[in-house]
Amino acid sequence: MKKSFGPQTYLPATPVLLVGTYDKEGKPNLMTAAWGGICCSNPVCMTVSLRKATYSYSGIVERKAFTLGVPSQSQVREADYMGIVSGAKVDKFAEAGLHAIKGDFVDAPYAEEIPFVVECELVESLELGLHTMFVGKVMDVKADESVLAEDGLPDVSLIKPIVYDPMHKIYSGLGESLGKGFSVGRK
Amino acid sequence: MKKSFGPQTYLPATPVLLVGTYDKEGKPNLMTAAWGGICCSNPVCMTVSLRKATYSYSGIVERKAFTLGVPSQSQVREADYMGIVSGAKVDKFAEAGLHAIKGDFVDAPYAEEIPFVVECELVESLELGLHTMFVGKVMDVKADESVLAEDGLPDVSLIKPIVYDPMHKIYSGLGESLGKGFSVGRK
Repeated sequence: MKKSFGPQTYLPATPVLLVGTYDKEGKPNLMTAAWGGICCSNPVCMTVSLRKATYSYSGIVERKAFTLGVPSQSQVREADYMGIVSGAKVDKFAEAGLHAIKGDFVDAPYAEEIPFVVECELVESLELGLHTMFVGKVMDVKADESVLAEDGLPDVSLIKPIVYDPMHKIYSGLGESLGKGFSVGRK
Repeated sequence: MKKSFGPQTYLPATPVLLVGTYDKEGKPNLMTAAWGGICCSNPVCMTVSLRKATYSYSGIVERKAFTLGVPSQSQVREADYMGIVSGAKVDKFAEAGLHAIKGDFVDAPYAEEIPFVVECELVESLELGLHTMFVGKVMDVKADESVLAEDGLPDVSLIKPIVYDPMHKIYSGLGESLGKGFSVGRK
């Protein structure tokens, strides 16, 4: 028997993403977002939704670019901080002890210390209500050498990404492997 | 030092979602998707991206509705199966031993056995290339009584959702809690 909760922003596992933007004066900013992900495989696109009231919103609109960083479990405090404080008031990079690097392909920064980063060029904006969904064409995915597996690809067990449960507002890491995609269901 | 991979559908943790649709004749279908998530808090909206070639695509377009189910770790084989086989050829519900229930609010089905379900009414479609991103207005979120916490809300540790790593094509469960959102970063 299922219990109904009505329309709620409930999904058990949403990704913790750090949105990197420059403001009008070129000050870099990071903001935490959990409303986002991959939305097209070719061209590769990713989406992230922000409220208009955020400092990062105008950065994306003006520069037509953003980065999405995936912090590691050890950076959960920095990740949460980026969602609490506004870049309008402080230099969040400096406050968190992170270093801003300009994207190689887009006019947006990312944090050197974050192990996994995606550079996106803005291609669509969809006004949905409280949030605007930005769609970015992925120009590059980059990862620290230290989080690459033996096959050269980024390794989740080394990146140690964070997921967010919006129901109880809890961050978690990932658990054990449950098997290979396009394989375990073949039986 | 970061290594560049170019434009890739890489993110360390994407959600495993089961998209529920009816076809023209009313046959229910489920399809696995990992390109999706929450995209607006008010009105609550969620997105899922499908290729035009999928059987589910026309179901969403015709009925203007879909459900998003979140399977549990013990259902990883069923979840993977739904991404391998096409509903054009088989009755995937029957093959997987799942029972289709019509949504209470939308013209789309969900599986009784899946612990967490979202009912969505189609409000936007965005053609991005290989994938079309569908935006659904959330009409209801529902969860099995057996996965509710003492406070009455859905509990991630009981739902045991699955995340997918598109780099190595590996499913994982969630790990330990890393702390509370809007809290651990206050320090």
